[in-house]
Amino acid sequence: MSTNPTPRTRVVREPDRAVYDRDAVNRILDEAFLCHAGFVVDGQPFVIPTSYGRNGNVLYIHGSAASRMLRNLDKGIPVCVTVTLLDGLVLARSIFNHSMNYRSVVILGTATLIDDPVEKIAALRALSEHILPQRWDDSRQPNEKELKATSVLRIPIDEFSAKVRVGPPIDDEPDYSFPTWAGVIPLDTRVGAPIRDERCQREFPEYLRNYTRTPK
Amino acid sequence: MSTNPTPRTRVVREPDRAVYDRDAVNRILDEAFLCHAGFVVDGQPFVIPTSYGRNGNVLYIHGSAASRMLRNLDKGIPVCVTVTLLDGLVLARSIFNHSMNYRSVVILGTATLIDDPVEKIAALRALSEHILPQRWDDSRQPNEKELKATSVLRIPIDEFSAKVRVGPPIDDEPDYSFPTWAGVIPLDTRVGAPIRDERCQREFPEYLRNYTRTPK
Repeated sequence: MSTNPTPRTRVVREPDRAVYDRDAVNRILDEAFLCHAGFVVDGQPFVIPTSYGRNGNVLYIHGSAASRMLRNLDKGIPVCVTVTLLDGLVLARSIFNHSMNYRSVVILGTATLIDDPVEKIAALRALSEHILPQRWDDSRQPNEKELKATSVLRIPIDEFSAKVRVGPPIDDEPDYSFPTWAGVIPLDTRVGAPIRDERCQREFPEYLRNYTRTPK
Repeated sequence: MSTNPTPRTRVVREPDRAVYDRDAVNRILDEAFLCHAGFVVDGQPFVIPTSYGRNGNVLYIHGSAASRMLRNLDKGIPVCVTVTLLDGLVLARSIFNHSMNYRSVVILGTATLIDDPVEKIAALRALSEHILPQRWDDSRQPNEKELKATSVLRIPIDEFSAKVRVGPPIDDEPDYSFPTWAGVIPLDTRVGAPIRDERCQREFPEYLRNYTRTPK
């Protein structure tokens, strides 16, 4: 499903890298779990890293990760949520044509606090499942006091765009003879060997064994 | 060297994770090379991923990566530059105490366009060296036309804070008996096997062979 960009989400630089397709955007959102949320206080932008979850066309973030934001949240505040997957360094012959391969999504919207306790717990579950599927059911779930101490924000995924660069460097034709190595150095997120908590006696469970962010 | 936080950079949530030491902040800035730059247009925050370089107490970013920002840049605009290194998922017994290990830096400041051609080329070189040391000298360097087409922004690293979480999960005492695996799943950036451009004849050079973001 393709969606028309608004003047605010239309990609200005390198428009050939723009993606406005909702399914493609969702694939990026589902591979990552860290976003950078931007909001404004007294004219000053703040950008805070935080995890997120997705349920259909709604993004959820923990309010607790952005208390500066929450202090300014009454009927909702304008936010920008940006998600970036870095896929590689692109080494061209010229410095000017060096680049990166990446997939990024920018969502503009209004973040509102979730009051409804049923939506709140569903949002927290979506957040947990987004980061680590099956973990929710294998953990001690939130009690009433913890739910009260946690704020969850709801951001509709309505106004968005993505930007994607893939493939080899593109040099100016005369530069192809320049004597240097050119190509791509891939980058991705590696999952390391688990470090068991010293007070933990349990076996490392199956659902964690093959944890990866890369979709099958 | 430690620096006092301003009311704007004082860490509000989990203040025990706050770091205001400039050397510690510089180590985070030097390990990463991707930042998320936030700025405001008509009250709406925008957050754009882009690479950066550092020279002493100055951060440089490509203006071309944020043309929406540049269109609004006359005498400088307020920005927030956030750099995040994600080090692991922290699996506690309770959902509530799940966390992440991370190191992040938030810099507030005013971004100004570099006019001076000498500073501009020094900034571009700092950017290049920051991402990939020795690459600048092994590339076809920018010509006058390319320099004109590139905008570089200067952001002083004066008002900043960092937030760092390390170590195992911290559970509420009664939860330690909850029957689940607990510990840390480390995450880091992996450098993959280089993909040579099909029109490249050169050997893969020594300075790229051991490329890593992890400091020795």
